[in-house]
Amino acid sequence: MSKNKKLVESITSRDVDFSQWYTDLCLKAELMDYSNTQGFIIYRPLGYGIWENIQNYLNNEFRKTGHQNVYMPMLIPESLFQKEKDHVSGFAPETAMVTTTGVENLSERLIIRPTSEVLFGTHYSKIVKSYRDLPKMYNQWCSVVRWEKTTRPFLRGKEFLWQEGHTVHATAEEAKKETHQMLEVYDKLGKELLAIPFVTGRKTDKEKFAGALETYAIEALMHDGQALQSGTSHYFGNEFAHAFDIKFLNDKNELEYAYQTSWGVSTRLIGAIIMVHGDDNGLVLPPYVAPTQVVIVPIRPNEEVLSAVKQIENELSDKFRVFVDDSDKSPGWKFSEHEMKGVPLRIEIGPRDLENGQVVVTFRHNYEKHTVALTDLHKFVEDGLKTMHEAMYQKALEATTSRTYEAKSYDEFKAFLKQGGYIKMSTCGEEAEIQIKEETGATARVILDEPLLTENCPVTGKKATQTILFARAY
Amino acid sequence: MSKNKKLVESITSRDVDFSQWYTDLCLKAELMDYSNTQGFIIYRPLGYGIWENIQNYLNNEFRKTGHQNVYMPMLIPESLFQKEKDHVSGFAPETAMVTTTGVENLSERLIIRPTSEVLFGTHYSKIVKSYRDLPKMYNQWCSVVRWEKTTRPFLRGKEFLWQEGHTVHATAEEAKKETHQMLEVYDKLGKELLAIPFVTGRKTDKEKFAGALETYAIEALMHDGQALQSGTSHYFGNEFAHAFDIKFLNDKNELEYAYQTSWGVSTRLIGAIIMVHGDDNGLVLPPYVAPTQVVIVPIRPNEEVLSAVKQIENELSDKFRVFVDDSDKSPGWKFSEHEMKGVPLRIEIGPRDLENGQVVVTFRHNYEKHTVALTDLHKFVEDGLKTMHEAMYQKALEATTSRTYEAKSYDEFKAFLKQGGYIKMSTCGEEAEIQIKEETGATARVILDEPLLTENCPVTGKKATQTILFARAY
Repeated sequence: MSKNKKLVESITSRDVDFSQWYTDLCLKAELMDYSNTQGFIIYRPLGYGIWENIQNYLNNEFRKTGHQNVYMPMLIPESLFQKEKDHVSGFAPETAMVTTTGVENLSERLIIRPTSEVLFGTHYSKIVKSYRDLPKMYNQWCSVVRWEKTTRPFLRGKEFLWQEGHTVHATAEEAKKETHQMLEVYDKLGKELLAIPFVTGRKTDKEKFAGALETYAIEALMHDGQALQSGTSHYFGNEFAHAFDIKFLNDKNELEYAYQTSWGVSTRLIGAIIMVHGDDNGLVLPPYVAPTQVVIVPIRPNEEVLSAVKQIENELSDKFRVFVDDSDKSPGWKFSEHEMKGVPLRIEIGPRDLENGQVVVTFRHNYEKHTVALTDLHKFVEDGLKTMHEAMYQKALEATTSRTYEAKSYDEFKAFLKQGGYIKMSTCGEEAEIQIKEETGATARVILDEPLLTENCPVTGKKATQTILFARAY
Repeated sequence: MSKNKKLVESITSRDVDFSQWYTDLCLKAELMDYSNTQGFIIYRPLGYGIWENIQNYLNNEFRKTGHQNVYMPMLIPESLFQKEKDHVSGFAPETAMVTTTGVENLSERLIIRPTSEVLFGTHYSKIVKSYRDLPKMYNQWCSVVRWEKTTRPFLRGKEFLWQEGHTVHATAEEAKKETHQMLEVYDKLGKELLAIPFVTGRKTDKEKFAGALETYAIEALMHDGQALQSGTSHYFGNEFAHAFDIKFLNDKNELEYAYQTSWGVSTRLIGAIIMVHGDDNGLVLPPYVAPTQVVIVPIRPNEEVLSAVKQIENELSDKFRVFVDDSDKSPGWKFSEHEMKGVPLRIEIGPRDLENGQVVVTFRHNYEKHTVALTDLHKFVEDGLKTMHEAMYQKALEATTSRTYEAKSYDEFKAFLKQGGYIKMSTCGEEAEIQIKEETGATARVILDEPLLTENCPVTGKKATQTILFARAY
């Protein structure tokens, strides 16, 4: 048994035990590691590198849409945190509190931010005085702490990395427009960077964010047929403005309350990438988010091969993120390792290849091998990554649409749920939503802007009011 | 009195009360704001934007020198923190501790990281097994918490942003090389981005980092003649490797302890930029670190002027960070505001300028005004920013060298210290260092690799052993 065989076999098959496959992959692909702080993970270079590429993409989009980055304190005085009552009741049980230092007890407990609405609210109340100061469109990259009981790498942890945008506007209309704009930015992130087709829509009142008037979400369907909420965008109206006294003089010199939004995505997106694209050999990274896009493996390298590898590396590095694996491991071991880590393209080159002026290029997502002339390589890589991105997106889209069902009866609903996937059903509202959750474990993902499927709610028999996308969810 | 006059007058003069000038500038330039969490500041867009440009510069340098970014937990179990005794005794009094959540007390207290040596140490002990795994060269961007009693914006706070590099190597030689390499990266950051001439050197044993064998630092001289330690690079030998059991099989299959380094710079650098370059009208930003490099102010704008402004913005935005201030404030108010915020170049354009096909460009660092033809503008801006960077660096260098003194007697030392600046003196060692600190408040900044100035130590009369750079310091 070769060493690389052994590496591959150490992962549970995806269709045997999806949950175990996920954990195995997170560890073996070296995306993360467990830490000595229970419930907290270490983001290893591959996991953090994916996050950095998401950050770069979003920072660019945020800038184009007029946002600025800021940084707020990590700790929030307990009294400040309690100012907005819906908000505090949503988060209070999960808060971690600093009560003492190395030398003295604090006079007031400080909460490690689970989210920063109250900090932004307080700051805005101080700096927003006039219509001239509006809008303020800030974003923050940071880590937050929520004391979750059960944790899973990237999906649910006591600490996670995220961005939280917080904006303040002169009118409700402008704030609503911002809420939708940022939802669209997230949707585009899926299309252009993650190769993940999101379903976007409004959350039901039951599922919305603590303190928000409206919550919108991006949802994605994982390989096991469960949904993952992957990002949210909230409209607050002027509820927080009342709680935090955010007022401004309009151009008629009248005092008005301002309107707010907040929106965020987190390292959960790494979990989405894994569970949408991964396979039994490990991670499969969409090419534009991959920290390493091309790995070059020299085969039985002599001096000429090593010099050719160096030249290829230089040529490709102008546009692509390239890694040369010149370690003393066997080629087979290297192949398995880079497959496990999801590197989109592998280039092999040995003495024979060099004589023929060619290399062998292997695609991670479909294992296709191509013999490519050295002179065509740069263009082949560029086109190859593009084709690969599109193919991965299409495959994920197909896996989503083929598992999106329409239920016209509750029995049908339950049958579809067993297969896994999204189920559309027209319900009466919260009463049905609660019953469905209790009886099946499925939750309302988003309200769809689609016609009713049935006149009455299949669950309660009452008049159907809206069509909802249901699924079991992470 | 015009509005802009009022804005400028609200800042204390730099040479009247430097400390008040600093605080005024931090607030009025909108670099930061105080928060409701005592001792914690808010990094506003301008302050955070400077930090982002420092991050971009360093990330690029870190990548070129083979480093990878990771992210470690924010909280450290108290028992883990206590594993390395020198380290813990250095930090214990300043630690903030989480003892409870919203629903239950924790079984073990968790410390918010004041620095992450113990987390990296534990992770390295797990992932480093063989010489093939070495070196590991990781860096982390994060915020840390140290419970300081007195705080000042950017210089000393209960929370600050920083990067902390932590590396592990097979040999002492390689680790020492890394320690020096990163000190050079920081020195280059000063030269190329911040326009700050650093003095680099080794710290005395008294001033070195808790747990390190050797600490090197970059030091800068502020306008008031005090020094600011602006970054450090530490060599740990294998002390931490013993404490955290970081061992590897070398290529002879023998088990060895590994060697480590750590190094960091923080948002303190923002304080250095302010205190080296600022003047009585506010912040003066070195052009390459400035979030906005060029501000365009339309004067009595008609349609043609606004269209010309748009065109100039587009042309300059290919290479420079440009902001158009088309608010309804008066031009004079805008001039003061952007001077306060330290924008390197201001471009004014009105109907008369447009007729003549020209604009007026004003440099922030020396207030020089130039009339520039529109056709030459792009090149003028490019050359102007370059010239400005060099002039600011030279000015800061001159301010440093002209205030660097050599003391051959203790009286001379005390007289120089009154003037403010760096003072070189050859001392016997720690005994003199302690006496100087007690009697004058000056501390040893770095050990200089220079010949002795006197045979005997002017403080103790004992044999002089090394030449040290002293200063009062932040």
